[in-house]
Amino acid sequence: MYICVVQGKCVSTIKNKKLSGLSLVTVQKLKKSGKAADDIFVAVDVIGCSIGEVVLVTTGQNAKHGLETQDLPVDAVIVGIVDHHDKELK
Amino acid sequence: MYICVVQGKCVSTIKNKKLSGLSLVTVQKLKKSGKAADDIFVAVDVIGCSIGEVVLVTTGQNAKHGLETQDLPVDAVIVGIVDHHDKELK
Amino acid sequence: MYICVVQGKCVSTIKNKKLSGLSLVTVQKLKKSGKAADDIFVAVDVIGCSIGEVVLVTTGQNAKHGLETQDLPVDAVIVGIVDHHDKELK
Amino acid sequence: MYICVVQGKCVSTIKNKKLSGLSLVTVQKLKKSGKAADDIFVAVDVIGCSIGEVVLVTTGQNAKHGLETQDLPVDAVIVGIVDHHDKELK
Amino acid sequence: MYICVVQGKCVSTIKNKKLSGLSLVTVQKLKKSGKAADDIFVAVDVIGCSIGEVVLVTTGQNAKHGLETQDLPVDAVIVGIVDHHDKELK
Repeated sequence: MYICVVQGKCVSTIKNKKLSGLSLVTVQKLKKSGKAADDIFVAVDVIGCSIGEVVLVTTGQNAKHGLETQDLPVDAVIVGIVDHHDKELK
Repeated sequence: MYICVVQGKCVSTIKNKKLSGLSLVTVQKLKKSGKAADDIFVAVDVIGCSIGEVVLVTTGQNAKHGLETQDLPVDAVIVGIVDHHDKELK
Repeated sequence: MYICVVQGKCVSTIKNKKLSGLSLVTVQKLKKSGKAADDIFVAVDVIGCSIGEVVLVTTGQNAKHGLETQDLPVDAVIVGIVDHHDKELK
Repeated sequence: MYICVVQGKCVSTIKNKKLSGLSLVTVQKLKKSGKAADDIFVAVDVIGCSIGEVVLVTTGQNAKHGLETQDLPVDAVIVGIVDHHDKELK
Repeated sequence: MYICVVQGKCVSTIKNKKLSGLSLVTVQKLKKSGKAADDIFVAVDVIGCSIGEVVLVTTGQNAKHGLETQDLPVDAVIVGIVDHHDKELK
């Protein structure tokens, strides 16, 4: 899973029916330094995150287990809010 | 899912029979800056996108859930048209 | 799916029995510029491609749907020959 | 599988119920040089690793086979502690 | 599949029971130039490779089809020894 920061909303009106009602947010992976990586991607938010919040994102096929319905065309789901994480060996 | 911009068509006459009738388009991921990444890949368009349109692309095994038939040799499907997305924390 | 150029053969005598009789070719992804990327990988060719031909390659688990048998240890399959593709917005 | 070094804990209070009771740790891949890569990710620890320990991490869908329950939204699991590994041809 | 060179052994005493008896080796992808990439990863060797040998590695979920048992937490399996492969268009 990746530690990401929530950047904002991804609004899509014309979309696959299976995605209706899902909250889509843009996220960026956090690097070891704590800075966000250059890439941005979209994850389904079933937790109700705020912008700027640090979250745990599961990607790939197993992401579906973070949703109630499992036959959705989704490859990234937010599965938790990160309270604290260690970045480097102390 | 990735936010991508549609670049154009990918025309293939000799292809796997299961791909017959599917619209294949070339897409590029958008970076945080809003610029397109260097890489280009091909996604199935079941929505009917225009060139230059910003779309949401699901990749990997779960992409199949964006299609009506699920046993296709496809690893990327356009699942929505992006109206607006936040790129950076405000 | 990725747009790749076929570089040549990958010959393997000692291999998993399930791969017997499959044609293995080395391919390289094409970048937006039309140049080949530095990386090289191996795909199963069930179409009968020529060296230098531009092809469409499906990767990951769904690649198996491009084969007749689906329980093969294969993660990349050529699913079409590309006649033409748009590389950049016009 | 990747050879990674355990960096520390990833603490999440608000999370998917299926993740309850799982130990989440931050890990970094080791490069050929033995140095840790820049990226950091989160894996489930079912072995009980210590910080600084070198471990073997399975990623992607098959990671689930390293857990007792297989329908979890998890894409990386620690499957072993590495005693020794060869980094370069001798 | 990737063309890799076998670097050596990966020894793990404390590991998931499902991995018992499997030979784990460290491998590196070969680039177009024939040089090994910087990254190193671990694959299951069911063929009996020697150090320095050039092998074909299947990754991801389908790697399991290269093993006799399919519910193992494994994401990379050696499926063949490469006798010869073409690296560039002639």
